[in-house]
Amino acid sequence: MRKDERKTNQLRSIHMETGYIMHPEGSVLITVGGTKVICNASIEDRVPPFMRGSGKGWITAEYAMLPRATDQRNIRESSKGKVSGRTMEIQRLIGRALRAVVDLDKFGERTVWIDCDVIQADGGTRTASITGAFVAMTLAFGKLMDTKNLKEMPIKDYLAATSVGVLPDGTEILDLAYEEDSKARVDMNIVMTGNGEFVEIQGTGEEATFSFPQLQKMLDLANEGIKEIIDLQKDVIGKWAPLIDKNIQKYNNNNRGETL
Amino acid sequence: MRKDERKTNQLRSIHMETGYIMHPEGSVLITVGGTKVICNASIEDRVPPFMRGSGKGWITAEYAMLPRATDQRNIRESSKGKVSGRTMEIQRLIGRALRAVVDLDKFGERTVWIDCDVIQADGGTRTASITGAFVAMTLAFGKLMDTKNLKEMPIKDYLAATSVGVLPDGTEILDLAYEEDSKARVDMNIVMTGNGEFVEIQGTGEEATFSFPQLQKMLDLANEGIKEIIDLQKDVIGKWAPLIDKNIQKYNNNNRGETL
Amino acid sequence: MRKDERKTNQLRSIHMETGYIMHPEGSVLITVGGTKVICNASIEDRVPPFMRGSGKGWITAEYAMLPRATDQRNIRESSKGKVSGRTMEIQRLIGRALRAVVDLDKFGERTVWIDCDVIQADGGTRTASITGAFVAMTLAFGKLMDTKNLKEMPIKDYLAATSVGVLPDGTEILDLAYEEDSKARVDMNIVMTGNGEFVEIQGTGEEATFSFPQLQKMLDLANEGIKEIIDLQKDVIGKWAPLIDKNIQKYNNNNRGETL
Amino acid sequence: MRKDERKTNQLRSIHMETGYIMHPEGSVLITVGGTKVICNASIEDRVPPFMRGSGKGWITAEYAMLPRATDQRNIRESSKGKVSGRTMEIQRLIGRALRAVVDLDKFGERTVWIDCDVIQADGGTRTASITGAFVAMTLAFGKLMDTKNLKEMPIKDYLAATSVGVLPDGTEILDLAYEEDSKARVDMNIVMTGNGEFVEIQGTGEEATFSFPQLQKMLDLANEGIKEIIDLQKDVIGKWAPLIDKNIQKYNNNNRGETL
Amino acid sequence: MRKDERKTNQLRSIHMETGYIMHPEGSVLITVGGTKVICNASIEDRVPPFMRGSGKGWITAEYAMLPRATDQRNIRESSKGKVSGRTMEIQRLIGRALRAVVDLDKFGERTVWIDCDVIQADGGTRTASITGAFVAMTLAFGKLMDTKNLKEMPIKDYLAATSVGVLPDGTEILDLAYEEDSKARVDMNIVMTGNGEFVEIQGTGEEATFSFPQLQKMLDLANEGIKEIIDLQKDVIGKWAPLIDKNIQKYNNNNRGETL
Amino acid sequence: MRKDERKTNQLRSIHMETGYIMHPEGSVLITVGGTKVICNASIEDRVPPFMRGSGKGWITAEYAMLPRATDQRNIRESSKGKVSGRTMEIQRLIGRALRAVVDLDKFGERTVWIDCDVIQADGGTRTASITGAFVAMTLAFGKLMDTKNLKEMPIKDYLAATSVGVLPDGTEILDLAYEEDSKARVDMNIVMTGNGEFVEIQGTGEEATFSFPQLQKMLDLANEGIKEIIDLQKDVIGKWAPLIDKNIQKYNNNNRGETL
Repeated sequence: MRKDERKTNQLRSIHMETGYIMHPEGSVLITVGGTKVICNASIEDRVPPFMRGSGKGWITAEYAMLPRATDQRNIRESSKGKVSGRTMEIQRLIGRALRAVVDLDKFGERTVWIDCDVIQADGGTRTASITGAFVAMTLAFGKLMDTKNLKEMPIKDYLAATSVGVLPDGTEILDLAYEEDSKARVDMNIVMTGNGEFVEIQGTGEEATFSFPQLQKMLDLANEGIKEIIDLQKDVIGKWAPLIDKNIQKYNNNNRGETL
Repeated sequence: MRKDERKTNQLRSIHMETGYIMHPEGSVLITVGGTKVICNASIEDRVPPFMRGSGKGWITAEYAMLPRATDQRNIRESSKGKVSGRTMEIQRLIGRALRAVVDLDKFGERTVWIDCDVIQADGGTRTASITGAFVAMTLAFGKLMDTKNLKEMPIKDYLAATSVGVLPDGTEILDLAYEEDSKARVDMNIVMTGNGEFVEIQGTGEEATFSFPQLQKMLDLANEGIKEIIDLQKDVIGKWAPLIDKNIQKYNNNNRGETL
Repeated sequence: MRKDERKTNQLRSIHMETGYIMHPEGSVLITVGGTKVICNASIEDRVPPFMRGSGKGWITAEYAMLPRATDQRNIRESSKGKVSGRTMEIQRLIGRALRAVVDLDKFGERTVWIDCDVIQADGGTRTASITGAFVAMTLAFGKLMDTKNLKEMPIKDYLAATSVGVLPDGTEILDLAYEEDSKARVDMNIVMTGNGEFVEIQGTGEEATFSFPQLQKMLDLANEGIKEIIDLQKDVIGKWAPLIDKNIQKYNNNNRGETL
Repeated sequence: MRKDERKTNQLRSIHMETGYIMHPEGSVLITVGGTKVICNASIEDRVPPFMRGSGKGWITAEYAMLPRATDQRNIRESSKGKVSGRTMEIQRLIGRALRAVVDLDKFGERTVWIDCDVIQADGGTRTASITGAFVAMTLAFGKLMDTKNLKEMPIKDYLAATSVGVLPDGTEILDLAYEEDSKARVDMNIVMTGNGEFVEIQGTGEEATFSFPQLQKMLDLANEGIKEIIDLQKDVIGKWAPLIDKNIQKYNNNNRGETL
Repeated sequence: MRKDERKTNQLRSIHMETGYIMHPEGSVLITVGGTKVICNASIEDRVPPFMRGSGKGWITAEYAMLPRATDQRNIRESSKGKVSGRTMEIQRLIGRALRAVVDLDKFGERTVWIDCDVIQADGGTRTASITGAFVAMTLAFGKLMDTKNLKEMPIKDYLAATSVGVLPDGTEILDLAYEEDSKARVDMNIVMTGNGEFVEIQGTGEEATFSFPQLQKMLDLANEGIKEIIDLQKDVIGKWAPLIDKNIQKYNNNNRGETL
Repeated sequence: MRKDERKTNQLRSIHMETGYIMHPEGSVLITVGGTKVICNASIEDRVPPFMRGSGKGWITAEYAMLPRATDQRNIRESSKGKVSGRTMEIQRLIGRALRAVVDLDKFGERTVWIDCDVIQADGGTRTASITGAFVAMTLAFGKLMDTKNLKEMPIKDYLAATSVGVLPDGTEILDLAYEEDSKARVDMNIVMTGNGEFVEIQGTGEEATFSFPQLQKMLDLANEGIKEIIDLQKDVIGKWAPLIDKNIQKYNNNNRGETL
């Protein structure tokens, strides 16, 4: 039994409030246990220099924490004058994961800016960010469709993420809270699609290692957890879900063995 | 009649939700019309180098906006690697204003860190930050008192802020929303105490000037508005209000003509 | 009686030496008591990106101190790799104040760069900078007129600044020297036009507050002081003064109640 | 058949030249096909602030590329004034991987600095860095033992890394050269111990996904490849290999199920 | 004949105004033709970390230009956030040159900070800075002697600098003004002592070379010019000159062949 | 007799390995005693903004050291976020020296980037860099000629560099190793052409001075040493040497007394 009485394969309670901030094209406040992240998606009508003239769009992400999102106050990265390695890793991960399920040819030379701002942290901020960012991005593309600036939903499949890990006693668990994460021997973040494919696996031991059977158990836990999360996403995105469902069919028939 | 049907001397609707973030010693989400600011107060058990050994405490503030708090997405200051002049001006103002109503001799060599993070902006973010920061700070000192780390409330008086300005047609108005602010000939931020004294006056014309009678009208509007806001603060801080009320008496009897 | 035997409403001795540096279009060394600031105005034949194509000009200011302008040597901002909050506040103030008395439509897509470099500091460096910068800017516009690049003087009114404050004993005084400033309970910088209108009021108490009657006394002192300073400016700018006098008439007749 | 005539499960030719640079405690030039990395290990007799007084040592890594290690010249990170996200990710990975096979309690309050400088790049620079860094670190600990500053070899197991991936035609391959890497749908870096346990798995699709069977094939390829590489490491580290072999026994008997 | 009617071996007019800024321990405004540099010397009662406990003092220099010291306005180095290579070269040169004529053992663990701020530039700013800095430093040591904090003058010899060069027509000239400098094929800065020894020679051709006979002519010109400049320095430092004269005797008798 | 048994006028052993790195247009590993520098020359088909449209090419250099090139590990300049003054001085020197022997009109609007990366340091890294960079640049121009992108060799003369100095006992020596350099009273770097002309002289005393006779002896030592080095360069550049020899004739006949 875990400290918060969860079973080893049990997710924390997840809630997504859409339209949370009024200005962005897509905005979600995602709550996963004690972790709260504001995910905003902004559409900009141009792409970075390296993509100009390609006819393709781009998706990029930024991630930050409020100084007091954590138990101890952290110095702002703007005050330090530079972004930490941890922040860079996370924002590169979020952007890469989202690009894996979007057809960049389908929304013109536009950039989708994803901003994930953690206002309260209790473990799993990067996976909550990916899960919430997917919803914010979907809403932003939806808004483009509503305003006739886009004809087709460019999202090829759902995308969600969670963490798995190995406790000091060797138990594999799903969705680590901060206290569990800080003690775990192995910490693994998994990003998957609605179709059950992997987008990203990042498993790491700080001063520890793990075996192949442990890896398999962790992947199974993640797989089940992510299915649950994607069901929640479907509810939240409402009328856009059928369009994505249709795209899953289409891309899996046409492009199987290629890019999705 | 103003665009949102307010009268010239009417504040926007104000709401303060305490305990908004779980980790900080004091936390408030303040909403002023469309402006939303998370104000967190953190207590650190040491002071900056220039104050060590003085036996006195210090109060300092930081201010930031989420990139999409505004209609157009702004580049993060952490990405730019430096804090803008506007941000610095605002955070210096917040810290200075709070220090004016606190007896720094009364809480030991501790630093109160105030973090004001604007998650949604619609004008008046700096004055909403001051108003909310006062409440967050009060709750943080209260927590120190509850946990017996502090015997006496070090706050000498209430503190709140609002904006006033002159519209292009010459009308003086209270509490400018973003659209009004962007057109106003004069923009003035006023910080006052519960006792009706000024803590800070910052009046400025961008490509315009103003007369003494206009100044007087603006100060009157601000005075009335701030009284209303302080009444709201009293409700929100609950059991700590009587301690501040007592301090107002004490400091005004003892120190009149000196520092408050 | 003040330490330097001045009366409460008496300015320090002020001197402005024009043509101080040979390269700039306008150059003044302003001396206010022990404070000395080199004010240079440079004309650049283009505007910042956000103004291109507007047909309007721009005025911007930078402010710095030599490391040993003060009693204790300060670290250079170039060595620190960033500009302090205080510096940013001051240079934003100088630029904003100058723009308030210039018709930006009247000198084409040009930028006036104002550089205020304090070579010796004894209080009031920001107000001395504004007073000197106005003269340097006038000379630079004059040079443009002399060389036929400009037909009309774009300056709408005079501009000067001074400080006022409240001493620990409650006395309101004009034009604070460094020693007075470091002890004052309230420090206020006032920028006004030749027409007696306000351009900027920045009054602030560090760990103190002030009342409305105190504010009024300070504003009166400032008003009298600034009149004297503007008389000195008229002498120094010589042949350009009548053009500004004429503009005061013109802008007050045509635009009263609008922007000046 | 691959472009360089390798089989899908064939490593490129690997060579490690020890003692390459004269000053460091451990130094190796590792060559993996066209990739060449200088790996230097330096011993410093103190630890970072957060570990002082713990009695434990620390291992940290830095990674860089010469500007013309690649086909197109890259701007130096020192000229840009900041380290890229990619560099940070890689150096965090190298340090974390090395720490997983070292008993930090066994070499006192010392820091091992690992510097991996890529002088020629042709794919797989991060995995070559880890493989070479392990050897440089071993030599540095060996030098400490030779000079009697250390009694016991603190390394608990071997450590090596390689890449695996999926080509556009769906073939899983081992040890990607640059040209293969730039076309691959999936790129995965695997770090393993001599005991066959995982230390780190980082699998990622840029605009693509992968299935569980594909993951398994890639892990098998990596497992075989890393065994071969560790055999080469044993030859190169010579007299220190038996000490590590003994530690593998010891740590697997004593601590199984705990940290290795 | 040169443009300003000087002979090839003729210095520009030189003037040094001591006590120019009121705060520094030593302050000089040096004018060399159109070049004007404020040289301030500040005494700090501690040395940099690498010298603590050595019982020796240190001398360091900083150099900067006002933005409009030159014909075209330059961007401030504080705005750019970094010091240019040219600035670094010059300030390292000034510090090194001054240290060559001071006995660092003779003034305790103190740092002499030299600030050379060019307020108007017309060629030769680095050599004027050295010449002026020597005087400012002498006055600062003198002040320490006057206030009994120092018993002995630690300066071993005079120090002055000038430039020499080769014009496009092959003529060697002394003390280049800006226009000459910008056209010269060879530009050489020479720093010498009162005793006629070299402290620094920096000769450089941008897209050109020079022969040994040309070098000799340039060194002769510099030698004569620097003698004249040192005579001017003697006048300006007044009562401190005999102490330096005595030190020249002493150090040349005792230490000949060692460090001076 | 020197520590490594060299005579005062004897160079250390020098070796240059061409084609060291596979990607650059020209690449050399130069070894001078214990000093090893990778010198890469890259051709870019454009010039910096200030030269666009001039029809001329540009040559620029960067210099860096691996952290453990030296006995004590140095912090990376990329981690510090800025390039040191020493690095800037050296890379400016390398670029300037190379430009002095190249006809910038003869290779179109191209930039030659020279990267000198010291992988092992034992004194004389900047002079070894210049000597090696000349060879790398020659090979890069040669490659342009081989691929028909260039018709004429733009190099006007050979270029090499060495150091000379004065030991504490007054002896003048050639080619200082690190230990000698750290003790020397005078340190001088000389860059010369095949024709025996000077390109750069940088002589400096740290806390010491030198006389004209000492200067002459040092210049003689440098002259002899550089002749030997240039003979080695001729061997290494092989088929390109006759083209440079021919250019020496041509430029000395046509342009004597002008730029070479």
